[in-house]
Amino acid sequence: MDENKIAREIAVILHRPKYAGNIGSAARAMKNMGFTRLIVSEGGPFAPEEMKMMATHFASDVIDNAIFTDNLKKALSDFHFIVGTTARTGAQRGPTGSLREVAEKIALLAQKNQVALLFGSEDRGLTNEDLRFCHEIVTIPTAGTFKSINLSHAVMIVCYEVFMATRATVPAFVPRLATSAEIEGMYANLKEILMAIGFLNPQNPEYFMYHLRRFFSRTGLLARDVKIIRGICRQISWALQSRTKGP
Amino acid sequence: MDENKIAREIAVILHRPKYAGNIGSAARAMKNMGFTRLIVSEGGPFAPEEMKMMATHFASDVIDNAIFTDNLKKALSDFHFIVGTTARTGAQRGPTGSLREVAEKIALLAQKNQVALLFGSEDRGLTNEDLRFCHEIVTIPTAGTFKSINLSHAVMIVCYEVFMATRATVPAFVPRLATSAEIEGMYANLKEILMAIGFLNPQNPEYFMYHLRRFFSRTGLLARDVKIIRGICRQISWALQSRTKGP
Repeated sequence: MDENKIAREIAVILHRPKYAGNIGSAARAMKNMGFTRLIVSEGGPFAPEEMKMMATHFASDVIDNAIFTDNLKKALSDFHFIVGTTARTGAQRGPTGSLREVAEKIALLAQKNQVALLFGSEDRGLTNEDLRFCHEIVTIPTAGTFKSINLSHAVMIVCYEVFMATRATVPAFVPRLATSAEIEGMYANLKEILMAIGFLNPQNPEYFMYHLRRFFSRTGLLARDVKIIRGICRQISWALQSRTKGP
Repeated sequence: MDENKIAREIAVILHRPKYAGNIGSAARAMKNMGFTRLIVSEGGPFAPEEMKMMATHFASDVIDNAIFTDNLKKALSDFHFIVGTTARTGAQRGPTGSLREVAEKIALLAQKNQVALLFGSEDRGLTNEDLRFCHEIVTIPTAGTFKSINLSHAVMIVCYEVFMATRATVPAFVPRLATSAEIEGMYANLKEILMAIGFLNPQNPEYFMYHLRRFFSRTGLLARDVKIIRGICRQISWALQSRTKGP
């Protein structure tokens, strides 16, 4: 799956935003997540320099290429799948899906369809009329009753979830774990040293060694970890011997 | 499981932030996701009204109750699990976990442990030295090469993922991790012993100590692990001294 191609099919539409700075912040958030198609519908005019200040120069191209329109319906006309965002829910406002599930749907549909992510104004959000254009309505999960999310933060979270959904599974870094032989050699070294310094009870050294094993097992020892620990054991052994010889 | 209780065990720490407005935006983002413990370490002074303007009145209590400190190490000392955020990765900066996986770990550990989410300054992020306090280091996934995320956006995404994870967490056995103070004490003991036995290069002891830190951080040290390791250090120290005295 080509992430870049998918990202190009997805647009963020800010409907009636009030502040140029929020448009810039939203542009930066979009760019972080690989999205560059920004449409601003109704509202403004917005000073480009104010938008760019918050976009930073990394995302100023998003502002340069943004489309400003005074008609939401027209702006949406070429899109196949429109997702509205709202903090207010209710029977009148249509079915709302879980953001994470809808993000997966978007990632899938965007392979062959134009997708719009629609956000309302800072103070009023999307009206029932705006939501009628939407195929899905999502509410960003929040704790308790403080549901009012900053506009650019809302754009960030939705773009982040869509980006996470579009990412193909990449091969993960697989570390080289220590072999059992390496680990057993390390335990033998440790036991020897802990006996030499009188830490282990000679009557029952395995009791404590068991706890050490539990501790190291939890870690998932890498080959290089074992090398380091064995190196320390050798050095302690050497230090003890050299001091024992005395003058 | 009590989401609110979990949220109270989790603090956001902004280290050396530059702009009061970003602190306010971060406070609002935290509150959206149910978090209210904010610590600002180094930097400032910040005008309360500037912070509150961006926090909005819904999150002004987060600002009112925020703790301002000039010492990161001290600020972290009571935390059991510290998660650092960085856009820059590299061998020297330690292994980075996936944000979503680490969020699950946080949701679990916060049932019995104090958790700190640590964020660096807007322009420089966290230094390697700051990251040494961290048990996990996460990078917020971004598309392409534009990794620089606005500070409050970064706080939002991390808080969002932790909030999502706390909602999904099922009760499980939660170990009592060692505090940062206990762990730092252990590293001081280890460094002393490794110097005494000539294992560390006196020119650059931190180089190797860094690898030890990475190793132990991966483990998730329990309070009792730290006790055992410090016990071994004391015993080695005693063994070395008693043999040095000679006949």
